[in-house]
Amino acid sequence: LLFVVPQQGALRIVTELGVLDVAPNEIAVVPRNIRFAVNLLKADEPVRGYILEVFNGHYELPDLGPIGANGLANPQDFMYPVAHYQQDHGSGSTWTVVNKYHGSLWSAEQDHTPFDVVGWRGNYAPYKYDLARFCAVNSVTHDHPDPSIFTVLTCKSALPGTATADFAIFPPRWACAEHTFRPPYFHRNCMSEFMGLIKGAYEAKKGGFLPGGASLHSIGTPHGPDAASIEGASTARLEPVRVADGTMAFMFESSHMMKVHAWAMQTGVQEDYWKAWAGFQVNFKKPE
Amino acid sequence: LLFVVPQQGALRIVTELGVLDVAPNEIAVVPRNIRFAVNLLKADEPVRGYILEVFNGHYELPDLGPIGANGLANPQDFMYPVAHYQQDHGSGSTWTVVNKYHGSLWSAEQDHTPFDVVGWRGNYAPYKYDLARFCAVNSVTHDHPDPSIFTVLTCKSALPGTATADFAIFPPRWACAEHTFRPPYFHRNCMSEFMGLIKGAYEAKKGGFLPGGASLHSIGTPHGPDAASIEGASTARLEPVRVADGTMAFMFESSHMMKVHAWAMQTGVQEDYWKAWAGFQVNFKKPE
Amino acid sequence: LLFVVPQQGALRIVTELGVLDVAPNEIAVVPRNIRFAVNLLKADEPVRGYILEVFNGHYELPDLGPIGANGLANPQDFMYPVAHYQQDHGSGSTWTVVNKYHGSLWSAEQDHTPFDVVGWRGNYAPYKYDLARFCAVNSVTHDHPDPSIFTVLTCKSALPGTATADFAIFPPRWACAEHTFRPPYFHRNCMSEFMGLIKGAYEAKKGGFLPGGASLHSIGTPHGPDAASIEGASTARLEPVRVADGTMAFMFESSHMMKVHAWAMQTGVQEDYWKAWAGFQVNFKKPE
Amino acid sequence: LLFVVPQQGALRIVTELGVLDVAPNEIAVVPRNIRFAVNLLKADEPVRGYILEVFNGHYELPDLGPIGANGLANPQDFMYPVAHYQQDHGSGSTWTVVNKYHGSLWSAEQDHTPFDVVGWRGNYAPYKYDLARFCAVNSVTHDHPDPSIFTVLTCKSALPGTATADFAIFPPRWACAEHTFRPPYFHRNCMSEFMGLIKGAYEAKKGGFLPGGASLHSIGTPHGPDAASIEGASTARLEPVRVADGTMAFMFESSHMMKVHAWAMQTGVQEDYWKAWAGFQVNFKKPE
Amino acid sequence: LLFVVPQQGALRIVTELGVLDVAPNEIAVVPRNIRFAVNLLKADEPVRGYILEVFNGHYELPDLGPIGANGLANPQDFMYPVAHYQQDHGSGSTWTVVNKYHGSLWSAEQDHTPFDVVGWRGNYAPYKYDLARFCAVNSVTHDHPDPSIFTVLTCKSALPGTATADFAIFPPRWACAEHTFRPPYFHRNCMSEFMGLIKGAYEAKKGGFLPGGASLHSIGTPHGPDAASIEGASTARLEPVRVADGTMAFMFESSHMMKVHAWAMQTGVQEDYWKAWAGFQVNFKKPE
Amino acid sequence: LLFVVPQQGALRIVTELGVLDVAPNEIAVVPRNIRFAVNLLKADEPVRGYILEVFNGHYELPDLGPIGANGLANPQDFMYPVAHYQQDHGSGSTWTVVNKYHGSLWSAEQDHTPFDVVGWRGNYAPYKYDLARFCAVNSVTHDHPDPSIFTVLTCKSALPGTATADFAIFPPRWACAEHTFRPPYFHRNCMSEFMGLIKGAYEAKKGGFLPGGASLHSIGTPHGPDAASIEGASTARLEPVRVADGTMAFMFESSHMMKVHAWAMQTGVQEDYWKAWAGFQVNFKKPE
Repeated sequence: LLFVVPQQGALRIVTELGVLDVAPNEIAVVPRNIRFAVNLLKADEPVRGYILEVFNGHYELPDLGPIGANGLANPQDFMYPVAHYQQDHGSGSTWTVVNKYHGSLWSAEQDHTPFDVVGWRGNYAPYKYDLARFCAVNSVTHDHPDPSIFTVLTCKSALPGTATADFAIFPPRWACAEHTFRPPYFHRNCMSEFMGLIKGAYEAKKGGFLPGGASLHSIGTPHGPDAASIEGASTARLEPVRVADGTMAFMFESSHMMKVHAWAMQTGVQEDYWKAWAGFQVNFKKPE
Repeated sequence: LLFVVPQQGALRIVTELGVLDVAPNEIAVVPRNIRFAVNLLKADEPVRGYILEVFNGHYELPDLGPIGANGLANPQDFMYPVAHYQQDHGSGSTWTVVNKYHGSLWSAEQDHTPFDVVGWRGNYAPYKYDLARFCAVNSVTHDHPDPSIFTVLTCKSALPGTATADFAIFPPRWACAEHTFRPPYFHRNCMSEFMGLIKGAYEAKKGGFLPGGASLHSIGTPHGPDAASIEGASTARLEPVRVADGTMAFMFESSHMMKVHAWAMQTGVQEDYWKAWAGFQVNFKKPE
Repeated sequence: LLFVVPQQGALRIVTELGVLDVAPNEIAVVPRNIRFAVNLLKADEPVRGYILEVFNGHYELPDLGPIGANGLANPQDFMYPVAHYQQDHGSGSTWTVVNKYHGSLWSAEQDHTPFDVVGWRGNYAPYKYDLARFCAVNSVTHDHPDPSIFTVLTCKSALPGTATADFAIFPPRWACAEHTFRPPYFHRNCMSEFMGLIKGAYEAKKGGFLPGGASLHSIGTPHGPDAASIEGASTARLEPVRVADGTMAFMFESSHMMKVHAWAMQTGVQEDYWKAWAGFQVNFKKPE
Repeated sequence: LLFVVPQQGALRIVTELGVLDVAPNEIAVVPRNIRFAVNLLKADEPVRGYILEVFNGHYELPDLGPIGANGLANPQDFMYPVAHYQQDHGSGSTWTVVNKYHGSLWSAEQDHTPFDVVGWRGNYAPYKYDLARFCAVNSVTHDHPDPSIFTVLTCKSALPGTATADFAIFPPRWACAEHTFRPPYFHRNCMSEFMGLIKGAYEAKKGGFLPGGASLHSIGTPHGPDAASIEGASTARLEPVRVADGTMAFMFESSHMMKVHAWAMQTGVQEDYWKAWAGFQVNFKKPE
Repeated sequence: LLFVVPQQGALRIVTELGVLDVAPNEIAVVPRNIRFAVNLLKADEPVRGYILEVFNGHYELPDLGPIGANGLANPQDFMYPVAHYQQDHGSGSTWTVVNKYHGSLWSAEQDHTPFDVVGWRGNYAPYKYDLARFCAVNSVTHDHPDPSIFTVLTCKSALPGTATADFAIFPPRWACAEHTFRPPYFHRNCMSEFMGLIKGAYEAKKGGFLPGGASLHSIGTPHGPDAASIEGASTARLEPVRVADGTMAFMFESSHMMKVHAWAMQTGVQEDYWKAWAGFQVNFKKPE
Repeated sequence: LLFVVPQQGALRIVTELGVLDVAPNEIAVVPRNIRFAVNLLKADEPVRGYILEVFNGHYELPDLGPIGANGLANPQDFMYPVAHYQQDHGSGSTWTVVNKYHGSLWSAEQDHTPFDVVGWRGNYAPYKYDLARFCAVNSVTHDHPDPSIFTVLTCKSALPGTATADFAIFPPRWACAEHTFRPPYFHRNCMSEFMGLIKGAYEAKKGGFLPGGASLHSIGTPHGPDAASIEGASTARLEPVRVADGTMAFMFESSHMMKVHAWAMQTGVQEDYWKAWAGFQVNFKKPE
């Protein structure tokens, strides 16, 4: 079960059930056991993005509770593939099908295309979603809700109340909450927070977090804004303002610990990330 | 189980478990089988308000879903009574206790106060809530969420997904949703909508709906804004604006049909209410 | 919430959400609070049928359990209405809308059509279903399953495991179960059984039960085949045979008691129905 | 928790709670923590069979859904052991008890029999079931239901809707479905399919799959009938016919991946199994 | 669904499914739609008792929670009827069968016995239970648990957490709780409490509550011991003592209001029951 | 998520959310992701105890079932920490924070105290509980309930009905059950039983099990009292007696297998524990 977040360059995902063209600011999900090929939509355009694989369960929309029948990601905005039938049987071409079993990749060759499904019925199929269609809700009075309010899709685990993976986004929106601290506050999470940036500059970390980059805050690791952001947000006059225009940051959250690949440890770690949290003042004085 | 919404003048609700002073813009709930007396907080102040009685179940906070651990009415804002012990036994005074059984009222006299409880423990007790503490959430992007997003308390029925009674409010807040029609749109409800106004002018019906008044739209009855409001909201430039400042409208919703008392039918019905919905234009022309 | 079973003559059900043409051997469901008009599809054809109204809940497909993802009534065979927009506003024609509240009918007149909905989205809509598409399953070895195996739609009550109403049919099919008594055996039901016949002759009661007729076996009333049927089915050689070709009987089952209307009591009751169960032999002899 | 499927030769399973004699076409389940010994019922008869061990949960009957109160495997057909008490204490004989902890086997010796339980009460006990008593249901109209319709017992996993293990059989029965392809169609499964054959020739693979053999189709591996079967079943006239008389194939399904033991890889793999799926024609031609 | 509590004289309940002999200190349940006759076990012995009818649901054992797999009423102590077949067909005798529909009784005559069932299978059958087999649990340290700890059977309503009817008993047992008030304390109940006495003297009301009598404390009505009992239990040294030896009191609890029949109002009401609660001292003095 | 059972010497657990002083006969729970330091309450007092770590879920009170609203461990007896604010920022002291990720310990140094939280709100916090406040219930008639009746807290696993860990105690109490065998009977458990002793002598094993010691009976391992205890309890006259005065034994139960650390295997295993179960007589003679 692959969750695909293109960040640069559009993809053409050909599957047995049809074709999905997926551009940055869209996401795609390919279910287990569906054969697919990922092509570049434009042959000379470099592509880059994020992929999350889960080994159990399926993504579903969160139960909206009092939000009601509409809001966040709406069912009607998810798109199934465009019909596609490939006629290539015994023409001499060779196809390699790669499967993953027990954590290993296996391949087999065949002399005909796997993309020759004439028709299908059901709802176990790849789909895509345009993140611009997300209807974000948030406080229109006071206080600062939990980031779960930005959940697009969730893959529940077997333990009620916990998720194998959540996908949340921080889309362009109005911020109008009063009597509160508007940026993401300091917190620790009971889940791993893997964050990526599709475009623009993330609202809570203007520097050092570039499109195509990623941050990982493991379970229980405290994190939050830097000293300047805290000073600014604590003194600003709170009128309605636009937030995140021109950007799209997202988060993969998981109740599992995540391991960082050796390749990433060698080439890309920001060694002085911790310095982002230097320079805080102590504002409270213990009464004598 | 009484749900009390004072609209004019503050009440002192004396119960076996203590005293609640409840003013307009607050609500109080008195559970079944608790003896109570309702006094005027100020002897010469006229009082008026709304009361809802349900015969089964209890009020609870809605499960917030993706809204998370905080938002709407927060548990810490509900207040239990102030401790109170009355010493009046055998002094010659007489107390009348009124009970309701099988829809009838029964009374008994006793020579001592019922409000002589020295201490108690548990959570089956009266409580009050200040509506100004409600943290409203709403769209900060586009679209117009269902009014369930304003739910304060709900009393579930035995049929999953339906409520014996919901209590919702329309508090002062920011409206910043774009690409939408902001006023309450035309709709029919699968529940009865009993609406009241505690103060100010209701955002969706400026005239004819006064504080202390009420409207009832029975199950399935279509209703919505008048022609001028539609014209206005359809052409307005949608910037963030304050909504409902200085007012507090509320709604009792129920999956039961409600009957109007004969007294109300005789003295107070607005006979020409239907005219509020005159003057609409047909904006669509069927293609030939 | 109306459940419509045309038995003779086709209907054109015009609703705010479009038009459904429903012929005998099809059924239609019109949800609460949707305005509709029922017309004859052919002006000079007499029509007749059965209607069931429930006051709570919605019809849904039964959870199939081990039957799997397909079988009985399949979701893809239910049809939403054909789009329809009526242009009749201020032309001088008069429309009467009838509503049912608190068990009484109320009417209102208006000078424009209610069937002027330009578009809609959602799944709360009228639908129809062709009973010929029902995929019946049954024993292909031995024994005689419960008639719940023929359930088309169910409207659950608040008490888990019981239904306000079930709709079941007895369609044309193969009977191939061996080592069993194939006709409906003698039984009492914990629900009311209201049975109707759309066409042909019902397999378990060849005479006295005509198309358009109905039988009602109240909760706990024993019933079953007549003596001749028992004798026949007990001695027949059990090879695969076609059952119910050319007929379509159905059952409304309800965990509520049903009352028979005075009109029906006066005009149509088969007074000697009980004689259908005369003439049984005692086949068991108590050992001394 | 052992699931035992004798294929050749009968077993006498002696347990603390009594004795089960289990012959081919029967299955037995021995719960965790019950001491047992497996003997040959006839000393000179070779025995062979299949065993499935699960490490969590218990087997239960599937919830039948609309099938009702009877059907598939009926509760009354499961048999608890015959009472058995062994008197052998201090007679000089030695007993070795083997336990499995953390995946390893441990043994202990004692000078008295473990099979000296005088009486017991409860339902945590070994049991057996005769597969000939299975009441198969299937389509008696059209279409081809999922093989879950043949489920005998299921051991649910912690993830709702998935099973640690299912046990299904393909018993002798009537096939009378019309307008369909009757053999097992081509499919991929979200579970591992381990198939065995107790006797006769499996309906969907007449050659190469002998009694005592096994096939394993891992999660997501497509499989189905051979080209000749497809040709035949696509053109046959569909009248009621007996299927699987004289055979009994079964399936262990699991949402876990299964590993094949090295011994099996060395001695028994059918290297050219894939050739069963050669020779298919392309029957669809893409429109120009 | 009848719940029968004989108080004086034994009954022979003949049913289609067999015979139950039920003596005082036993209870019997006859499910809906089963035909039965109640005879005297000894023709010249007067009989008397209590009957409770519920119109929905079934009695079940409460989920024991941490009490575990055994305790309170154990499943193995419920007894199904003794097999019984009556041979009386066409002998000239007449049988009258009485049914209850819509709250009225209807009768029909037939010339053969209804008690001629040769055999049956299932668990929808009458049963009886000997109250002496109830395994009561209670505090063996301190505090005074809720009377729900004495629940024998419960008939759940559709509203989770509430019961249409509970049956509880107060059997002979040890009382050894310390640091507590041992008699039933003063309380109001969210259910109606209908109490009866099968034999002996009820522990909490020695006088005025005779075997065969009944007390009814409606929902919300406060009740408790008299002044002398309070004085005694408040000063007693709390050593283990036997409670209720030689008696058996029981309670029907219901979340419904109960009406008292006119006959009972005329002949048997204890008019001065309220005086049982006279003479209490005020033991608390409000601090100045 | 740490579960702490001090056995000798009191601890001062300093956490971000305040201070808990925990003495023997109390337990403390520190949730995941809360920083804490464990100090000796008295600097020169040796301390010793038991710790259980679980990697998923949270401890909760068991659903009491018919025990009602009170009993076992009561919610009001759990104590949150005493408020605590430490002022130590930039004073030159160094703090080392140790985290556990992926089974390894990681440390970081900082120049200010982590215990400088000024205030907090919520219920995700450390807590302690005094085992002397446990209200044990047990049979007050006959039979011997399951030890689950002594459950203090449970941490549920994802598989319904099973627990990652249960914490149960065997507190001082009255034993008054009759017609039964009062000591822990011989049994095998579907969970691992890790038992510890806080003080005194455990009722079921007077010798060889000292305070601070531990026993482990893995899943499925039979265990019970020794021959002398069986002889004694089988012949004793069963009057109410005090049990476990002056002691406090407890049990960690888990549906997981537990491994014994190499250090424990080398230094502390009681090699002849099995001899505790020698000398039993065979009391049953098989009928000829």
